[in-house]
Amino acid sequence: MSTIVFPDHHSAAADAEALRKACQGWGTDEKGIIGILGRRNAIQRKLIRQAYEDLYQEDLIKRLESELSGDFEKAVYRWALDPEDRDAVILHTAIKKTPTIDYRAIVEISCTSSFVELLAIKRAYQIRYKHSLEEDLAQRTTSHMRTFLVGLVSIFRYQGEEINARLANSEADILHGAICKEKAFTHEDIIRILTTRTKPQIIATLNHYKDDHGTSITKHLRDEQSCDYVSALRVAIRCINDHKKYYAKVIRQALNRAGTDEESLTRVVVTRAEKDLKEIKEVYHKRNSVTLDHAVAKDTSGDYKAFLITLLGN
Amino acid sequence: MSTIVFPDHHSAAADAEALRKACQGWGTDEKGIIGILGRRNAIQRKLIRQAYEDLYQEDLIKRLESELSGDFEKAVYRWALDPEDRDAVILHTAIKKTPTIDYRAIVEISCTSSFVELLAIKRAYQIRYKHSLEEDLAQRTTSHMRTFLVGLVSIFRYQGEEINARLANSEADILHGAICKEKAFTHEDIIRILTTRTKPQIIATLNHYKDDHGTSITKHLRDEQSCDYVSALRVAIRCINDHKKYYAKVIRQALNRAGTDEESLTRVVVTRAEKDLKEIKEVYHKRNSVTLDHAVAKDTSGDYKAFLITLLGN
Repeated sequence: MSTIVFPDHHSAAADAEALRKACQGWGTDEKGIIGILGRRNAIQRKLIRQAYEDLYQEDLIKRLESELSGDFEKAVYRWALDPEDRDAVILHTAIKKTPTIDYRAIVEISCTSSFVELLAIKRAYQIRYKHSLEEDLAQRTTSHMRTFLVGLVSIFRYQGEEINARLANSEADILHGAICKEKAFTHEDIIRILTTRTKPQIIATLNHYKDDHGTSITKHLRDEQSCDYVSALRVAIRCINDHKKYYAKVIRQALNRAGTDEESLTRVVVTRAEKDLKEIKEVYHKRNSVTLDHAVAKDTSGDYKAFLITLLGN
Repeated sequence: MSTIVFPDHHSAAADAEALRKACQGWGTDEKGIIGILGRRNAIQRKLIRQAYEDLYQEDLIKRLESELSGDFEKAVYRWALDPEDRDAVILHTAIKKTPTIDYRAIVEISCTSSFVELLAIKRAYQIRYKHSLEEDLAQRTTSHMRTFLVGLVSIFRYQGEEINARLANSEADILHGAICKEKAFTHEDIIRILTTRTKPQIIATLNHYKDDHGTSITKHLRDEQSCDYVSALRVAIRCINDHKKYYAKVIRQALNRAGTDEESLTRVVVTRAEKDLKEIKEVYHKRNSVTLDHAVAKDTSGDYKAFLITLLGN
């Protein structure tokens, strides 16, 4: 569920006018911007952008970019975009990151989006960057990492809920053989199972794995070097298995670092606010004995803090 | 262009009645079936199936299957289906083929369909078989063949027509290095380029390859063992480069074998009849100095022959 209570009725033109006022004159009225944009859903924000364009022949997002700065600007920019456009921007940033790609954002989006959502994101990516997501991703990766990530973003998984228990059992054995006996984390069957099977089927396989071998697969999937590829496997498994728990942990790690990891924090809050941030907050609270609102307020400041707290539902 | 001139007006109910009559009584009236179904386009055939179902509470396709036999039955069955459903059936048959899959049909369909067409085929596959195409394909393949074929059927290529000449040049060199210097036909960059780049970009790269190295890449892509994987690479390149020329050659090979290869012949005629069989016929005629109609009539017989000749536009 969304954390934000959106107004049933709003006037896109009145919102556009108020945003224009907030951007004009001496200094920007950041609170005014937060008060409007932070309390409008994706469709309402789209209408506001259109109304703003019609009224002032100016791109609202570009205007906001020029008025705001730092983490606050990045967060508002991502929030103001259409969801599929925002995810395309996040994926592009992750792929172009140097010296190595940010595989985490790529795995997250590909494993928590439905195929139809992913398709919309890939269309938005192509319109924006005149390349396919797969093309850019394949060019910046090699070997197992390439096969794994390109598979995750491109394969059209079957959406059925039915589970084949015998298959789950045999594929749990295949995974265990590859991971524990052969220590072959790059075994192609690990990639095949995680990229092609349905999510309920993968969860059944993970449960068989744990039942038969006493330990979760993610515990076994740790190597001394902790390379990115193995870490990407773990992120995929955790996103498929329980993405709310996964996101709660990403936020916890982002906040608990020496120096908050604003990029991850923004990514989770902005991308989940209209989806399931409410449940992620509950998981966070239960696990950390402190509310997410409190933790975020403690580790952030200024307009960035005010914006996140608004998206968190306050 | 289609080979068949479809009637502007037809009554689906009258066609359904005529087909019912052709299926009833002493012996089936194959000519009657060919005369109707062979002269209706995909939408008209769909309406006939619906009218037949409404009038007789019976599935027309199942009835035809039980009335007809052999190559004729297979051809009518494929033709009677919706195009995306037919391609799903062809792909499923190709994947389940023993002892090894029929990679050719998979490469053909994935390289000659637009992404939107491929998506419709994959949806039809999932509805029919309760699995994803990628899942079944990955399970029946391994290694490079898996990466290549799963990439071809799943990656959402950018549809833009713009060509990056510098990229075409550098990737022609990458391909040449892998194929001629390293003799590494399984080099992952070959798979990356063929599965992720846009078709115009790949064609530009193939042209650079030929200009710089004096020979087409498909000539270089021949090994002594002529393994399926290398052969699949060649099919993909030929389908992307000039699929009409490719299909003309498939038909030629199907007819010139000792014992006609009816499966390939049916596949090309049925899948291309409403698309570009007219141009394929022209390419065939030019290359072989004999019309395709004549060649097909010479090497086939009976109702199967009559049906193919009808689809060829006679």
